[in-house]
Amino acid sequence: MRSPIPDFLDETLERFRPDRSGENADYIPALASADPEKLAICISTLDGVEYTSGDADFEFSIQSMSKPFIYGLALEQEGLAGVLEMVGVEPSGEKFNELSLDKKSGRPLNPMINAGAMTIHSILGDPGASLAERTEIARAGLSRFAGRELAIDESVADGEWREAYRNVAIANMLRSYDIFYDDPDEVVRGYIEQCAITVTVKDLAIMASTLAGGGINPLTGEQVLSPRVNRQVLAVMMTCGMYDAAGDWMTEIGLPAKSGVSGGVFGVMPGQVGIATFSPRLDRHGTSVRGAKIFRDLSDRLSLHIMDAPEPARSIIRRDRRFVDSEGKMVRICSLQGLIQWSGSENVLRTMDEPGSTTNTFVLDLRRVNEINSVARSMLTGALSRMKDDGIRVVLLDPDDLMQCKGPNSALPGVQILDSLKSVKGLKRIRDDRRREMADRST
Amino acid sequence: MRSPIPDFLDETLERFRPDRSGENADYIPALASADPEKLAICISTLDGVEYTSGDADFEFSIQSMSKPFIYGLALEQEGLAGVLEMVGVEPSGEKFNELSLDKKSGRPLNPMINAGAMTIHSILGDPGASLAERTEIARAGLSRFAGRELAIDESVADGEWREAYRNVAIANMLRSYDIFYDDPDEVVRGYIEQCAITVTVKDLAIMASTLAGGGINPLTGEQVLSPRVNRQVLAVMMTCGMYDAAGDWMTEIGLPAKSGVSGGVFGVMPGQVGIATFSPRLDRHGTSVRGAKIFRDLSDRLSLHIMDAPEPARSIIRRDRRFVDSEGKMVRICSLQGLIQWSGSENVLRTMDEPGSTTNTFVLDLRRVNEINSVARSMLTGALSRMKDDGIRVVLLDPDDLMQCKGPNSALPGVQILDSLKSVKGLKRIRDDRRREMADRST
Amino acid sequence: MRSPIPDFLDETLERFRPDRSGENADYIPALASADPEKLAICISTLDGVEYTSGDADFEFSIQSMSKPFIYGLALEQEGLAGVLEMVGVEPSGEKFNELSLDKKSGRPLNPMINAGAMTIHSILGDPGASLAERTEIARAGLSRFAGRELAIDESVADGEWREAYRNVAIANMLRSYDIFYDDPDEVVRGYIEQCAITVTVKDLAIMASTLAGGGINPLTGEQVLSPRVNRQVLAVMMTCGMYDAAGDWMTEIGLPAKSGVSGGVFGVMPGQVGIATFSPRLDRHGTSVRGAKIFRDLSDRLSLHIMDAPEPARSIIRRDRRFVDSEGKMVRICSLQGLIQWSGSENVLRTMDEPGSTTNTFVLDLRRVNEINSVARSMLTGALSRMKDDGIRVVLLDPDDLMQCKGPNSALPGVQILDSLKSVKGLKRIRDDRRREMADRST
Amino acid sequence: MRSPIPDFLDETLERFRPDRSGENADYIPALASADPEKLAICISTLDGVEYTSGDADFEFSIQSMSKPFIYGLALEQEGLAGVLEMVGVEPSGEKFNELSLDKKSGRPLNPMINAGAMTIHSILGDPGASLAERTEIARAGLSRFAGRELAIDESVADGEWREAYRNVAIANMLRSYDIFYDDPDEVVRGYIEQCAITVTVKDLAIMASTLAGGGINPLTGEQVLSPRVNRQVLAVMMTCGMYDAAGDWMTEIGLPAKSGVSGGVFGVMPGQVGIATFSPRLDRHGTSVRGAKIFRDLSDRLSLHIMDAPEPARSIIRRDRRFVDSEGKMVRICSLQGLIQWSGSENVLRTMDEPGSTTNTFVLDLRRVNEINSVARSMLTGALSRMKDDGIRVVLLDPDDLMQCKGPNSALPGVQILDSLKSVKGLKRIRDDRRREMADRST
Repeated sequence: MRSPIPDFLDETLERFRPDRSGENADYIPALASADPEKLAICISTLDGVEYTSGDADFEFSIQSMSKPFIYGLALEQEGLAGVLEMVGVEPSGEKFNELSLDKKSGRPLNPMINAGAMTIHSILGDPGASLAERTEIARAGLSRFAGRELAIDESVADGEWREAYRNVAIANMLRSYDIFYDDPDEVVRGYIEQCAITVTVKDLAIMASTLAGGGINPLTGEQVLSPRVNRQVLAVMMTCGMYDAAGDWMTEIGLPAKSGVSGGVFGVMPGQVGIATFSPRLDRHGTSVRGAKIFRDLSDRLSLHIMDAPEPARSIIRRDRRFVDSEGKMVRICSLQGLIQWSGSENVLRTMDEPGSTTNTFVLDLRRVNEINSVARSMLTGALSRMKDDGIRVVLLDPDDLMQCKGPNSALPGVQILDSLKSVKGLKRIRDDRRREMADRST
Repeated sequence: MRSPIPDFLDETLERFRPDRSGENADYIPALASADPEKLAICISTLDGVEYTSGDADFEFSIQSMSKPFIYGLALEQEGLAGVLEMVGVEPSGEKFNELSLDKKSGRPLNPMINAGAMTIHSILGDPGASLAERTEIARAGLSRFAGRELAIDESVADGEWREAYRNVAIANMLRSYDIFYDDPDEVVRGYIEQCAITVTVKDLAIMASTLAGGGINPLTGEQVLSPRVNRQVLAVMMTCGMYDAAGDWMTEIGLPAKSGVSGGVFGVMPGQVGIATFSPRLDRHGTSVRGAKIFRDLSDRLSLHIMDAPEPARSIIRRDRRFVDSEGKMVRICSLQGLIQWSGSENVLRTMDEPGSTTNTFVLDLRRVNEINSVARSMLTGALSRMKDDGIRVVLLDPDDLMQCKGPNSALPGVQILDSLKSVKGLKRIRDDRRREMADRST
Repeated sequence: MRSPIPDFLDETLERFRPDRSGENADYIPALASADPEKLAICISTLDGVEYTSGDADFEFSIQSMSKPFIYGLALEQEGLAGVLEMVGVEPSGEKFNELSLDKKSGRPLNPMINAGAMTIHSILGDPGASLAERTEIARAGLSRFAGRELAIDESVADGEWREAYRNVAIANMLRSYDIFYDDPDEVVRGYIEQCAITVTVKDLAIMASTLAGGGINPLTGEQVLSPRVNRQVLAVMMTCGMYDAAGDWMTEIGLPAKSGVSGGVFGVMPGQVGIATFSPRLDRHGTSVRGAKIFRDLSDRLSLHIMDAPEPARSIIRRDRRFVDSEGKMVRICSLQGLIQWSGSENVLRTMDEPGSTTNTFVLDLRRVNEINSVARSMLTGALSRMKDDGIRVVLLDPDDLMQCKGPNSALPGVQILDSLKSVKGLKRIRDDRRREMADRST
Repeated sequence: MRSPIPDFLDETLERFRPDRSGENADYIPALASADPEKLAICISTLDGVEYTSGDADFEFSIQSMSKPFIYGLALEQEGLAGVLEMVGVEPSGEKFNELSLDKKSGRPLNPMINAGAMTIHSILGDPGASLAERTEIARAGLSRFAGRELAIDESVADGEWREAYRNVAIANMLRSYDIFYDDPDEVVRGYIEQCAITVTVKDLAIMASTLAGGGINPLTGEQVLSPRVNRQVLAVMMTCGMYDAAGDWMTEIGLPAKSGVSGGVFGVMPGQVGIATFSPRLDRHGTSVRGAKIFRDLSDRLSLHIMDAPEPARSIIRRDRRFVDSEGKMVRICSLQGLIQWSGSENVLRTMDEPGSTTNTFVLDLRRVNEINSVARSMLTGALSRMKDDGIRVVLLDPDDLMQCKGPNSALPGVQILDSLKSVKGLKRIRDDRRREMADRST
């Protein structure tokens, strides 16, 4: 069998290929002269598999798409509080190259508009870092997200520098407000170098996939961003990434994304995939026309909108049965399944807590559970501990140690951990009407 | 065992109870004189269980918290396109009672600021609906979210009406821009009635839970909002619900929420829970001080931030083994587990597609799968269909018909569906080094 | 001889009559249906002579042209400081019906935009004055400027009231900021009545002439505004009267003016004339197209721009000669002419102070002086007093008592005042080369 | 006698000397370290006499006070239309160093804010002029206003350049909007050199006096600006010169003025005087605290407010009498006095036009007239010409040829021009009741 995914992507590209609306960015020769017919897509899974269609190996400058990654690196370097003092997180509702400074403090409203991105660039490295040092930190940092060594296209940087009046204006305005103390020209030039780093949609998809995977690069396995910083980057992308189209993007597409004037767009579906497209013609927001349309299409067809409630899951509680063992003592076996998050653990606790559910032994069967997150684990540990305090014998059927109770550092000392039920002998089932009612109610 | 959740909520409330910062809203006597010490929380699960602590039965006016629900009702009534013509979805970065109109069209920027909410209120009912009709539509509509008949506190409405200069100003401004054609005073009065509907934190939590559950009220089971409208409501809450603190709320708390000047706040964790708090003292954004702090605390401790990537899941593919059957033909059995979304189905397809994986029979074992969403189902159906076209015999181990292939309307005619492997006789295991390598790689 | 002025005005009107650009105001039926071909002009001198051309007896509503006059009346009633607390004097650069409120205080930026004009209207009368009382105060007040009893066109007022959403919005916004405490609807209705008072260009020209004459109505002789208030009104008209075209009007036309959406415009040349035009079609600023063009034309042709420096005047000092009298004592006779303001008096003082100008008797000859303003009078009085202190005999040739030194309250006791030089006997001229040189230098 | 003016100025300075409120500008070392106690004033008459008090020879940098003069020079060089395309004339209501650009075009709102002033500076010289050339044009141009060669204080310029981030920002923003095409750094540096030209209050007063005198330098007699450009400069100073305090300055002080952060302020009373003050401590608008207070004081005490209507003048018509000559023919002699502007000529025409005023000879006696402006001259010429056409003999008593009717290019060929009435023989007075009535009416 051939996977239908490449066909799916091919078909998607072909559907939008005839759309020739929009215009190349015109303020840099390298962008103005880019082939407007180029069209590419790449989807990267969290384990680094890349599905591509179109001109997936075509290189283009990363431009504004560098902003969230460099923001993440600056957060890792300086800490959240330090960076927030310099750049806010509020949407500006303005174009990327507007000043968008806080009226009182002069602080850039967020790191996705140019004023914020240049301030973030100025943070890179030790205080007093040279232009070359900061540029290299940006290049090396973006390379860690891409999982390969990226390079700077100096001809793009030179072209941008020659027309960089607006960014020079913004940087000098920031300097005049004492937002940073570096030489404004050096900050602009460094930021332009950062923007001139070249990538393919494959690189971008891996970079996006790194953010989707909680900061872990799927190719190298490196934890490039810590989970807290990764979350901050995604949250800011969500509200500020699409500038004055933030609300439209949030309602229609619903995943954190970032575009660049070179024609690239990337989006992140946390816990699932990273997606990148390339098509040079831009809409009035400076976002690739076909790119935005493809994202809209994929969001609909692949259910990627973060506000789409998951379709109703099977109950977390697979079975909850009672037995009498060979000694005449009551044994309750509660079998769970699926992904246990906070709300799932609540469900379990509620079942454990039902009136008339006294038992001598409580067996929690986790053999069909795929995952327990830390909040749920802590909830369950607490509940089982209370049970033990109530004098009930607690048994875990947990061959993969999802509850982390094996060994000397057990979160639940004294609990009995089994791999199968075979050692629990001579159980005799008790008819349990209450359980059936519950099942009925939840339908 | 007693559930630790009530203790958890009690402990949370007590931790924030000493905080007396902020001030009651002062522009309506009923709000100014509210007991500022009142403090309550309720969390409602998607099946309608409510955990409460504090003054959970205390009634207060819903105020701005009515906005997202009425927005949803208007969307159901008029359709997305019609409503978008009247009210946008872009964050305003301004206070709730600012004009926040589009410079050119006069259209309110979003339905969460007063200008937008009043325009949305004016949409309710047939054109030319009376004040009483619109008020009743709002009351009855909110009641459907709460799962009980809510009432209007006319003393609150009267107090607000006496000082409603600002809302009257906004409504007349909208009328002057021809945003609506109703009498401005009637629109304001109706909107004030809508805001004066009284609720408890338990009501609010159920209402929030309705949004968390894709529009289905957990108590009544009614589909109050369609999934698409429900998503729109949540998306707009996320970017516009907290007014000028949108970015801060998104990065720090990360779930769609709405506050009211009466002191209530509710938040929605899609697919998990609805949460509501009450505490009358407000910060400068008009949001309950203790409410916001409790949300921040819960978001951290319960991992409710929508940009938190789920912790790494077990592999979707539990086992992928090959056998030779009694006739010497190759049989491949691929066993899945957990929740299968698009990215999971991609994983399966990739495995099915691996080079050198030719087989005579392909068995997809879904017995440990908890859920397959529709995108993933469609992906898998397509892949299995291709396999069949390649001449491979396809067997589903799918006792719960997750693939919806049983019966005459099967998405995959001709596929064999089994409940257990017992009918597949005499299989002999083939050692499969490739599979082991794959497992290694994914660690 | 027939005066050429009517011909001049006729010719001016005919030159602009073919211009049909612009549109009638369309938001009130009475304005929308006004005959757009109507065209009129009136110039009123400071003694109340009116030159007219065109439809000079056609009545139209005064609209925004009432603003400066009512501002003046409010200033007289409450004093400058009290009014400034409620309404500022800064140009807004915005259209007449924009909010234009101070960001912090909510105070209207100036009394020429609607927000300011309604606040000013609310000041009229005693606190708590009724709508009818305030309306009558406005009507009676404007009548004092016009020199005849003006009436309100209630059909215009009713039409405006039906569509007054924007003004109702503004008034409620002001009320919400506690700028005034009156009922917003009553303030709007009163303001609309004020705007519906009907006038002709002849009325308007007299009203303008009242401002040109320092607040004195040229027909009735009533001092309607005190000089300080009159100056305040003109200054505010100059910077704020033409809304967002303030700079253009100041540079191109250069006299304080005010337009109304009914098509009237009036302008004031302080100390010279009041001018009014009428033509209903408006430009995008809401100002009569032909009216603005006629003002531009008149400003150029009649040299009415306040920044036009007067053409070089003859020297204030007509002659400065020295004689020896019959007793051999030196007599200096300094003869002045024209209008003596501060700068002129400085010129005289300088002459009096010249080195080598010692004399026994100093005669100041004012027979050819037309006017001495109070500053100049005070300067000269001071200088003559010093001379007397120096032992010089001071004589005034001042038959009209311009120096106010006659009688018991003389500003200069002991000075000798003559009507002619006849009583100064036997003077013999001294050749005075220095004086000639001075005359040469000043050429 | 010693002139009281120096005492008046001394007294004024001493009254404000104790005021130590405000702070030196702190962004340039040279300004921050200036002696804040320095205090000076100079008033210059239109013939160049300077009255001074305090530190009148102290030199300071001209800063923003250069703006109106350089604006005038650019207008002379490029013409009004060309300059208006680049820089508007509308007040910004913002601080001097705000962007204040037109939202659509990026054009600076006016030439008094920095954005406008730098754009104006960029206009100087031929296209492509070098930094040195533009700087020299500015220095030489300002010297023509001052009447002496001014110099640049390079230490001030260097200090300002080191901290010029904000101006560099503004210039780059303008360049990005294609407002000019010069190198932004060179424009800023040139503008800074322009601002670093040093002056004394005496220089400034002469410069102001040049503007007061219609563009003619009172010391050198050079016509530095044409009257139309001079008017434009004054009009723009009036509305835009004091930035966000424009309305306050207009209402309270009422003469065109400009301040600089070095502590200087100058003001212009058209047709009368130029005034300059110096005191380094600034208010929040960046204007000298004591300077502004002294201007306020002088405006009140010297009646310098342009909206102060002149105090009532004597009638322009001194006498209007009728005689019968020796031949029995009617002779009317109309004697004028004072300054005849348009409104005065109207008065004369009206008298000439009175019913029942037929005469055989009309004598216009101008011997006591000080000045006739060109509009009035043209009005009178026209009226006399009509009279002649009506068959009346017209005689001018005009020894100084104010009517410009002597010689071959007479505006009124055939009119008889006399120096005295001696040649009009044998006149016999006719009692004239009408004239007396008129005099009564005008009281």
